[in-house]
Amino acid sequence: MVRWEPDARGRLGQAAFELFTERGFEQVTVAEIAERAGLTERTFFRYFADKREVLFAGADGFQDLFVSTVAGAPDSAAPIDAVAAALYAAAAMFTAHEDGVRRRSAIIAAHPDLRERELIKLATVAAAIAEALRGRGVTDPAASLTAEAGIAIFKIAFARWIAAPAGPDLAKLIAESLEELKLVAAGNLSATPPTGS
Amino acid sequence: MVRWEPDARGRLGQAAFELFTERGFEQVTVAEIAERAGLTERTFFRYFADKREVLFAGADGFQDLFVSTVAGAPDSAAPIDAVAAALYAAAAMFTAHEDGVRRRSAIIAAHPDLRERELIKLATVAAAIAEALRGRGVTDPAASLTAEAGIAIFKIAFARWIAAPAGPDLAKLIAESLEELKLVAAGNLSATPPTGS
Repeated sequence: MVRWEPDARGRLGQAAFELFTERGFEQVTVAEIAERAGLTERTFFRYFADKREVLFAGADGFQDLFVSTVAGAPDSAAPIDAVAAALYAAAAMFTAHEDGVRRRSAIIAAHPDLRERELIKLATVAAAIAEALRGRGVTDPAASLTAEAGIAIFKIAFARWIAAPAGPDLAKLIAESLEELKLVAAGNLSATPPTGS
Repeated sequence: MVRWEPDARGRLGQAAFELFTERGFEQVTVAEIAERAGLTERTFFRYFADKREVLFAGADGFQDLFVSTVAGAPDSAAPIDAVAAALYAAAAMFTAHEDGVRRRSAIIAAHPDLRERELIKLATVAAAIAEALRGRGVTDPAASLTAEAGIAIFKIAFARWIAAPAGPDLAKLIAESLEELKLVAAGNLSATPPTGS
């Protein structure tokens, strides 16, 4: 008989994040995560392939949010504006779950393998955004470039947000990076301040 | 007694590329690479940690070329122009070794693990370019954004060049992507052609 475990996935995720933060990712076993959640290892494996997957289980939702926001932008929106809408949607999601997002980020930052996995996930999201842009009639290379630029903006704004917990909010940092990309791409940014300025 | 083996590294690289192309990366052993090159396994391991490293041994040179070109650009060059100079320098290097570059690209494209390794190497190059820009007095987030945009342009132009062996040369594709990024970032690109156009 399978017992009904209310919100088993959420409890396992919560337990895993606590343990990773307390002891470090490497030191934690699936058995310990299950025990902390008051569940069995077997239940754990009904939801996650391994302990690493607990950290990346949200990535599909992140990608879906990006793709659906890009696809759903008004027909009149320029590609960069469709991508900007997706960046702001992601910022709202991250801000709503700020504690968990910061905790996850600290765990990933501490492990080269996890950082690599994160990079690969972001490359997958970029490819999905490019595909969504092509679905809007944007041709290549503009579709791929806009998608890659969007992910670059997100990575950079996110890193600044993580580095300064009391600093500007994520949406503001994204807006700044979007504006900065415009200046950078146009070459309207001097490499060094003019002498005497 | 260690015998002098003229250009052992070059011969091993050549043998490895031939074998990977003929049989597929997975199927080739270090012993076979050494044999094809007329050398011993021991000699192989004096130059490469494993067979994968043969494919990525050039990545340091690629990164050095980027960094030194960015660092050496005139003081008056805007950050994107310093990065553009590095992109053109890399294009010249790739064009000079076109056969080898295309062969390497085909081997990497066929293996998810190698594609991931390539992504991670490119992320490392982006970080090194950002550092070189900061060395020129460019502040963040502009330094990181310009570096990421440069790598995005390179990836996209490179993919187009690989896809069309008889198509435009790599430098021309880079120039197009640089121009396109300017349009994309400025929002001067409509998502779908206006109705009736």
